[in-house]
Amino acid sequence: MEAFTDGVIAVVITVMVLELHVPSAATWTALLEDGTVFLSYILSFIYVGIYWTNHHHLFQLVRRVDGSVLWANLFFLFCLSLFPFSTAWLNKAQPAPAAVPTVCYGITLLLTALSWGLLERRLIAANGGEQSELRKALGADRKTRLSIAIHLAATSLALRSPVASCVLYAVVAAMWFIPDRRIEQRLGGI
Amino acid sequence: MEAFTDGVIAVVITVMVLELHVPSAATWTALLEDGTVFLSYILSFIYVGIYWTNHHHLFQLVRRVDGSVLWANLFFLFCLSLFPFSTAWLNKAQPAPAAVPTVCYGITLLLTALSWGLLERRLIAANGGEQSELRKALGADRKTRLSIAIHLAATSLALRSPVASCVLYAVVAAMWFIPDRRIEQRLGGI
Amino acid sequence: MEAFTDGVIAVVITVMVLELHVPSAATWTALLEDGTVFLSYILSFIYVGIYWTNHHHLFQLVRRVDGSVLWANLFFLFCLSLFPFSTAWLNKAQPAPAAVPTVCYGITLLLTALSWGLLERRLIAANGGEQSELRKALGADRKTRLSIAIHLAATSLALRSPVASCVLYAVVAAMWFIPDRRIEQRLGGI
Amino acid sequence: MEAFTDGVIAVVITVMVLELHVPSAATWTALLEDGTVFLSYILSFIYVGIYWTNHHHLFQLVRRVDGSVLWANLFFLFCLSLFPFSTAWLNKAQPAPAAVPTVCYGITLLLTALSWGLLERRLIAANGGEQSELRKALGADRKTRLSIAIHLAATSLALRSPVASCVLYAVVAAMWFIPDRRIEQRLGGI
Repeated sequence: MEAFTDGVIAVVITVMVLELHVPSAATWTALLEDGTVFLSYILSFIYVGIYWTNHHHLFQLVRRVDGSVLWANLFFLFCLSLFPFSTAWLNKAQPAPAAVPTVCYGITLLLTALSWGLLERRLIAANGGEQSELRKALGADRKTRLSIAIHLAATSLALRSPVASCVLYAVVAAMWFIPDRRIEQRLGGI
Repeated sequence: MEAFTDGVIAVVITVMVLELHVPSAATWTALLEDGTVFLSYILSFIYVGIYWTNHHHLFQLVRRVDGSVLWANLFFLFCLSLFPFSTAWLNKAQPAPAAVPTVCYGITLLLTALSWGLLERRLIAANGGEQSELRKALGADRKTRLSIAIHLAATSLALRSPVASCVLYAVVAAMWFIPDRRIEQRLGGI
Repeated sequence: MEAFTDGVIAVVITVMVLELHVPSAATWTALLEDGTVFLSYILSFIYVGIYWTNHHHLFQLVRRVDGSVLWANLFFLFCLSLFPFSTAWLNKAQPAPAAVPTVCYGITLLLTALSWGLLERRLIAANGGEQSELRKALGADRKTRLSIAIHLAATSLALRSPVASCVLYAVVAAMWFIPDRRIEQRLGGI
Repeated sequence: MEAFTDGVIAVVITVMVLELHVPSAATWTALLEDGTVFLSYILSFIYVGIYWTNHHHLFQLVRRVDGSVLWANLFFLFCLSLFPFSTAWLNKAQPAPAAVPTVCYGITLLLTALSWGLLERRLIAANGGEQSELRKALGADRKTRLSIAIHLAATSLALRSPVASCVLYAVVAAMWFIPDRRIEQRLGGI
């Protein structure tokens, strides 16, 4: 299952790379005009990277996988597979992000965070429930809830100020940049 | 072999993601015009997900793989690799699905179901035949036969009413949505 | 190493799938006009499938891998990665294949067969040389030599009669369709 | 982690394959006009191959992976994922390489080499530090430093003579062509 997830994530990154179109001329100006594209490519790459490292950490403590986990994982991958589309639409409005695509990008982030929460719950249910080591390692999982709240706020804000929303999206990315220390501590290193 | 299958399925999903073109304008209207595309993307994603989880379940009971299984698996992957093409053609006729592409989509579903049945038979032959644990776990496999029958009916219907066919395609997807409990029960969890 | 090879082969198949463009209209005529494309897609899919199954069989007897094997494998993958390009160019001339693209397709087949022979030799050298079990299992390897000879003949013929060349390419594919029984016998099943 | 890295590298190679556009006519002239594209495709394929084999060798001696290694690896993969973009832009100016794209290609090579050095340092820190077997196997790592120096020189030169820069890029590739014997010796074969 990790192999399949790795494959899909690798492929999501590729599709985003394909969005990096060759500049129209061989000059710095032509490259800079695509500047925002690079910024949002880096942002999306970091988001996908965060989910990948956390997925990797999470599955260190997993002993058992059932059908509902498989489907929760597929739903999570489905949400991740919407990243290239959302990123590309966000980048289309140059030089500043447009309102509707920014809302869409926020909905993608929101859906992915929710599907991640769902995957965590299904994994806990399949690995001993509330008393399991996995449950204790994840703790109250305030970070997931906080990031969902920020995503909600940022998405609502997008119709008024797309730039502010994008800054909030970057804040959540920064918040998650450090991988899940909770599990790493419990394992004493991967 | 599972790694290769995972790789191809990951890649099939990617190619379908690539079909999700960026809307022509930064408005909700432009997004909604691509609505059918999203519906059929979700349908195809579910079909590929179903086959992936069932493949995963099936190979839990497999002990031995021979050349004919490798080729049956490749033929199955070949059929899956036609999904992005069929999905894209189905979506091209907007707003309602057109007759011929709907027939093609049905043929793809039919071929994939047949190749899945063939893969099951080759696996049973390579793992002890009629008396094998795999044979018992799969039982009479009425679900595969029923879904082939519905696919046949839906495909014949497509020239008259493409929308009705698409509804039938979704019904079969719903029927298979729950992964193969038969094997899961025998294994006592994956 | 098998995982990487599987990944590249999966990806080669994808790129070929991407060549299957959506027909210009929702009619059978529009689909049939792309008929040759399907034929050569199937041919290339079979070639890649043959190499994949033989690669899978070959590595069953491999115990040791050194740097030269890694590079021989990369060169083999490089040749395989030229398949989508050659297939696409071959298909561009409709309805019959054109001379120069047919030569190119033949050169790709030839290079891939040569790189496969090189990979076999490097693997034998790294796994005990002439007295090794691998060497005995592969035997005189007349099939590789014969297919290289047919590829050479077909490629030379291409400038005069592209159709005859394509038939010969299909003959070699049929010749290899049955995976390497020599190794399968020695292993008593994979 | 190796599986994910393999997946991303496989995907980077694919995207580069996609840059190989079908010639506009079925003639040798049309193929030769794309000659430079093939040259730089081969160069980039060799670079990616070098990093892949060295990554493979490096991880033979790795016993422990922590969060900082995961992120160093992701940053390394991010740099690799810029290859298709840089290669495509370099190829756009025909028949000779243009100044700005050549600088960009050099920056990509430089970033990748730096991220590789960073990955090595994080791996050494996570596997016993200066006294570790990994540290001894890598030695003074003069080759990495030398190649960074040549990349710097070549990138600075690019605005004056893009062709000379490209030759230097090829020289570094040739320098790294032989995989990391230091580790292979210590392991006595992979």
